[in-house]
Amino acid sequence: MAEDNTIYVGTKPAMSYVMAVITHFNSTDVKEVSLKARGRAITTAVDTVEIVRRKFMKDLKTDKITIGTEELQREDGTKNVSTIEIALKR
Amino acid sequence: MAEDNTIYVGTKPAMSYVMAVITHFNSTDVKEVSLKARGRAITTAVDTVEIVRRKFMKDLKTDKITIGTEELQREDGTKNVSTIEIALKR
Repeated sequence: MAEDNTIYVGTKPAMSYVMAVITHFNSTDVKEVSLKARGRAITTAVDTVEIVRRKFMKDLKTDKITIGTEELQREDGTKNVSTIEIALKR
Repeated sequence: MAEDNTIYVGTKPAMSYVMAVITHFNSTDVKEVSLKARGRAITTAVDTVEIVRRKFMKDLKTDKITIGTEELQREDGTKNVSTIEIALKR
């Protein structure tokens, strides 16, 4: 998947990312969009997918959900943070 | 999967659920354990799986991850909350 079809979910309200997903799918010939999030934003990523699927694109499929761990470098050492990637297909 | 191999992840620290997962797998002939969480606890569920897989059971496989929505009845109406189910296999 091209990197530009990846949406990084952060600390904004889910509705911001809902709009981003819909905008991506409305571009010509985009069939797949991937959501990536880490830490507390994982819940927001799941909320985003559920809102899009229930309210806007009933035919949206959750293609693949992958979880993992990323090491964050910090001043006081490294910290492990969980990640999620949700691949969406229409 | 038998209902007793389901662990409900809530507001405790991830390490509590890590212990629960390990205890389940240490029981005789348990090959599958399922983690369920909703709302903010979704992140804790992902953390739990990642800690178990990286620190305790390197051979743990994430079998299937499912997301969904549950309707919570409240005094002031209903509220939608996202859910996750992570099926683990050793």
